[in-house]
This record gives sequence, C-alpha cells and structure tokens, in this order.
Amino acid sequence: MTTERFAFAVKARDGTARTGTIQTPRGIVRTPAFMPVGTGATVKAMFPEDVAASGADIILANTYHLMLRPGAERIAKLGGLHKFMHWDGPILTDSGGYQVMSLAKLRRIEEQGVTFQSHIDGATIELTPERAVEVQCLLGADIQMVLDECTPFPATREEAKASLELSLRWAERCSRAFAGRALPGQALFGIVQGSVYPDLRERSARALIDIGFDGYAVGGLAVGEGQSAMLDMVEASTAVLPENRPRYLMGVGTPEDLLAGIARGIDMFDCVLPTRSGRHCQAFTWGGRLNLRNARYAEDQTPLDSESACPAAQYERAYLHHLVKSGEMLGAMLLTYANVQFYQELMARARNAIEEGHFASFADDFRRRYRDTGDEDDPEA
Amino acid sequence: MTTERFAFAVKARDGTARTGTIQTPRGIVRTPAFMPVGTGATVKAMFPEDVAASGADIILANTYHLMLRPGAERIAKLGGLHKFMHWDGPILTDSGGYQVMSLAKLRRIEEQGVTFQSHIDGATIELTPERAVEVQCLLGADIQMVLDECTPFPATREEAKASLELSLRWAERCSRAFAGRALPGQALFGIVQGSVYPDLRERSARALIDIGFDGYAVGGLAVGEGQSAMLDMVEASTAVLPENRPRYLMGVGTPEDLLAGIARGIDMFDCVLPTRSGRHCQAFTWGGRLNLRNARYAEDQTPLDSESACPAAQYERAYLHHLVKSGEMLGAMLLTYANVQFYQELMARARNAIEEGHFASFADDFRRRYRDTGDEDDPEA
Repeated sequence: MTTERFAFAVKARDGTARTGTIQTPRGIVRTPAFMPVGTGATVKAMFPEDVAASGADIILANTYHLMLRPGAERIAKLGGLHKFMHWDGPILTDSGGYQVMSLAKLRRIEEQGVTFQSHIDGATIELTPERAVEVQCLLGADIQMVLDECTPFPATREEAKASLELSLRWAERCSRAFAGRALPGQALFGIVQGSVYPDLRERSARALIDIGFDGYAVGGLAVGEGQSAMLDMVEASTAVLPENRPRYLMGVGTPEDLLAGIARGIDMFDCVLPTRSGRHCQAFTWGGRLNLRNARYAEDQTPLDSESACPAAQYERAYLHHLVKSGEMLGAMLLTYANVQFYQELMARARNAIEEGHFASFADDFRRRYRDTGDEDDPEA
Repeated sequence: MTTERFAFAVKARDGTARTGTIQTPRGIVRTPAFMPVGTGATVKAMFPEDVAASGADIILANTYHLMLRPGAERIAKLGGLHKFMHWDGPILTDSGGYQVMSLAKLRRIEEQGVTFQSHIDGATIELTPERAVEVQCLLGADIQMVLDECTPFPATREEAKASLELSLRWAERCSRAFAGRALPGQALFGIVQGSVYPDLRERSARALIDIGFDGYAVGGLAVGEGQSAMLDMVEASTAVLPENRPRYLMGVGTPEDLLAGIARGIDMFDCVLPTRSGRHCQAFTWGGRLNLRNARYAEDQTPLDSESACPAAQYERAYLHHLVKSGEMLGAMLLTYANVQFYQELMARARNAIEEGHFASFADDFRRRYRDTGDEDDPEA
C-alpha cells in the first residue's frame, strides 16, 4: 500500500453526468464505476484475476458476511482482506446494516446499535456504529460505509423521519470512530436515507454534509419503490450533494438503471445482478438479455456476445445452453465472467460517451437496443 | 486436424515401466498419461484452457452422457466434440457401456446390445456395438473404446467367462464397424475383461490381440476387488499384451494406484478422483492428502502446495478453508484445478523417473511421503 491519499477528480461533464477518477492507496477507480459484489471474500464463481481482467477497478465486500465467517479479527490476523482474497485493488465494504435487516434473525434496533442472531450459527452479535467501523478497519477496506438503518419500504413519513434521524446519529458516531482508527488514505462514506420523501432526502444529505464525509451514498433504494421513484430520490439527493465528492447509488442495478443513475450524476454502483444472473442462466450481452436455458439456443452456434471482448463471451450459445441444462459449474463460471465484463464494458462506454459529450444519445441507443430483450423461460427449456 | 496417423512409441523402459508418446492427429500424448474426465463435455469446474495449462495432453469424455445430452447427432451438427467443448487436443471416449450399467434404469443386455432407459428423461435407448462406434465417430473421438460389458463384481468364474465372451463378440463387431467409418488417424482400443481370474484375463487379451486393436485397455477393475487383486489382474493382462501398443487401465485411481500401474507397464489412466475430490474439499498435494474443511486450516497461511507449479495451489489454506466452509464455488474451482495439475505433475515426474532409470525409488519415496496422509473429517470442521 502506498501512502497516497483518497481523492476524487471530475475529468469531464456531460449535462449532470460526469466521469473522473477516485484515487485510493490501492489504485485508481475510473468513474462511473460498477463494483462487482464479493460477498464472502469472493466474487462468486470467478477467479480474482478474471475479475481484474474484466475491467473492474474496485470490488465490494460484505461486512455482515465476513464478520460472521471467517470473522474480522481472523481476517486481520491473516493479513487483511486484500491478501486473503487475492485482490490487490481497492475494496469498498458496506457497514453490515443492510444484511442484518435482510438476513439475520431476531434483530433488535436500539439507539446503541443493532443486536441480531447470526443466520449461520445463531450466535448473538451486536453491531454498533463503532463496531462497524472497527470491523471495516480490521478488514482493511479502502472505502468504508457508515452504519445506517436501511429504511424498510414502504414507510410512512414519520417512520422514515425517525429512521433517518437514527442513521444520522449513527453516522456521526461512525465519523468519530473512523477518525480515531483509520489509516491514511482510507475513506468513509455517509449514506443518504429518507425513503421516498424528497424533503427527507434533502434533510439527510445536508446533515451528512455537515458531518463531512469523503463520499456520499444514496441508500434505501431498489427496495420495491420502482425505477421512477428511485430516480426521483436520486435527484433529490444529488441536488444537494457536493460536486467534489463521489456519489454512490447502493445496490443498483440493471444496465438501464445504471445509465439512468449516471445521467443524474452518480459515480459508483454495486449490485449482485451480474453475478447472481450468471448463476441462474441469464446473460447480459450487447444484443440484450438472454436466458441460456431456452431451447432456442440448443443449436445456436453464434458466440454469446461477439461484441464483447470477454473470453467467456466467445463461447457458443449451444455449448452454454448444454452446460446450464446439465447443471455444470462451467456454465455459471462462464456466464458470471461474461456478465461481470459486460457491466464493466458498459461503464467504459458510458465514461467514453461522457468525455465525448454524447452520453444522452449513447444511453438512448442502449435503451432502444435493450428494450424488449430478455427471454421468457420457455416451457420447453 | 492434420492427417497424421495414430502411432505409439516407447522411448525408455525402467523394469516393466515405460515412457513414450502416442501420436494422434490432434497432438502428442506423453505417456504414462493421466486423462482428466470431462463427462458431460466439460472437465467439471474447470476452464478448458486451465485443463491444458495443467499439463493434460488428452481428456476423456463419456459417450453415455453425451449421447443422452446434448446428443451425438447434435454435437456432430455443431462441429464435433472438440469444437463444442473448446478442447483442441486429443479426446478419448469410452463406449458408454460402463455408465449404462452404473447409471441407466431398466437395462437389458442381449446379444444384440444393451437396451436401457435414460436416467435423465426415461427415454428407451439401444446401444449396440455398431451404435457405440457410430456415436464415438459422431463425437469425433480420437481414441475410441469398444462396447463391452463391465463384468459386475463379484462374479463367479462362469459368469465372468460368459461376460467376457459376449464382450469379445461385441469387440469384433466394433472393430468391423470402426473399419467402415473411422477417419484416418482415429484409433480403437479393445478392453480386457475376465474379472479376478488370471486365465480369463489371458483368454480375453489373446482374443483381442487376434482381432487387432490400436491399443488395449484393462477394464472391469477398481470395482471393489481391492488394490492387490487389481494389480494381479493388471499383471495377468500386461503379460500378454503387445509391447508396441498403448495400455490403458480404466477408471484408476489414487496416486498410489497410478504408480503401481505404471510399474506394471500401464501407459494411460483416467479417473474422476481429482475432479470429484476437488468438489468435495479434498486436495492432493506433494505433501499428501488434505481435507480443507478441517478446522486446523482455519488460520493456516501456508499455500495449498508450495511444491506445485499450479496457480491454484498457491492460494493459502486458510482462504480455501473459508471458501469450502462457505460453500463458495471458487473453493471447488481452485481445488479441482490444483488436483488436476497435481495428477499431471505426478505423471511428469514418473515419466522423468523412468527416463532416468530410478522409477522404483521415486515410487517408493512417493508412497512413503503419502502414507498416513489424508485428514479425517474432524467433528469441528
């Protein structure tokens, strides 16, 4: 690790879309950036060198999973998460809060933090803002996230307000804990909450800016509110967020979602969609979405995606169809690799389009290309 | 494909062990050779380029699986098995007979052939000697095997005799069918049967030699008879088989089995052990067998196998332990790759030891090294 500091620079703008770089001690992240999700210290079904070869500058790892197994102290003892999982580039970790809500049993949220039972062995665990920062520091994450409550959807205005105020108090505590513990160059991001209420989003963003973070995420979205409401909330947030800090839309999403987010000034994304889809016979290609289980591919000798530079995308659809029908691991391996690289290629083209000042037409062309693609899982398959 | 013919040359001998090359139109196979098993047109959990990088010159594919899914005619239509599965090197296919016995439902063996129900969709299928050759030719296999009955174990002398005589009549029919259909350079191997009866093994081998094949396999072993009986039968067979034809011990085995087979003049092996073990947390290393589930590896920062050149063997045991405990696909991917390469490295060292005339001491050293290795699956794991 060098001693370079964390820094963000916008290189070009096209409307509200922007492209630039995040500098971290582990390397440069080109933005807009998509972060493949490496939940349990592995981007599922991929060799780490292929994740790098796909064009990913940064990956995301899940604090919740890693603190339960193999444990943050153990990873620290083994030399940190980068060494452990063979990934030299930057790593962003979430705070664990989201998975506590979605995976843990018997969770109880109090002012102090959240207490829950591990979904693996039932152990009772407390996650406070201070512990969330401690865990992320033990992992050695380059970009860390504050512990927040991902406000459930739907939520009344009052519920959303109470939830975001708790998250703000936790953000303040995270910020203090981080100041006392982080290494030079490590960064902490705040998370804007506020459900689907624009004024609450604004309130959340302004309060986080007052605390002061290295970057700002928009959280609590893609939880059922629909794309239109999601984009309204992104706009309500980015309208307030500072231009000179990276903006991260958490847990989003489809290729179309990414382009819509970029158009609104988002710089970073993460989502399990490319990896999870790859394990479920679904491919993202420059020609649209494909379900490789479909019988129509049984004798299709065209490559998965001749427009992609990914080695995995050069395999014939007939072979991929055979692999997924047979439940062969190689099917998941190839589709995951191709999907992860497709997402990276999409980001690269988006960055290029912004630099060249034609992002809107690029995004329109892409949406037209993608519209109505996506095979139904046909009965014969 | 070039038009080179099939040829076998012994380059060096050390006792009854021998090293040499099999020339095929798809390339050279260095012997003794271990063939990774690519059952359903994929060596499970491995990219084809990694199979090649591991040192494998040739792989085995299963006729039974491929004729059921995706179908031999379909593979032929798609350009043959090599193109289909991204493997340019030689491929050996079995005849399908063994899997009919072990996997298919409602099988009925008659003089004409075997009728069975697909274990996938219940379809009734007939496999005759002629069809077994036709299927292997449709696949484009470089080395093909005669259809035989893998004599069940245990078998009385009379049962074993009747079974091998049927196999001999089928071998004769395969030979005729092959002569009328095979491409230049393709090879057909006979299979010695005879259960655990040395005189029947001799009878089988002599009758096959009379028919005349490009190579000879020893079949019907590793089915429960034990290593000692197996090796006796190998000796009873190789004593009769011609020196100038490759000898293939089917479905064998452990590293120790391979060395014992090589010592008795065997040139080729196949087994699912390295790949299946890789999917079940078991590693073969130069230091012995390891069960990566064991808690003792949770903080073991040594590489899986520092003596191996395999990239996958450079991963730390603690990380592999974490992956297999978490059920992550990457665990199976890495252990499979490491195991397949370990088997190739074992063959390379065996070839070298034969050339240098110290095979016996090499095999002794290896057996000593491997003795008493192999973790029990400890309760804590």
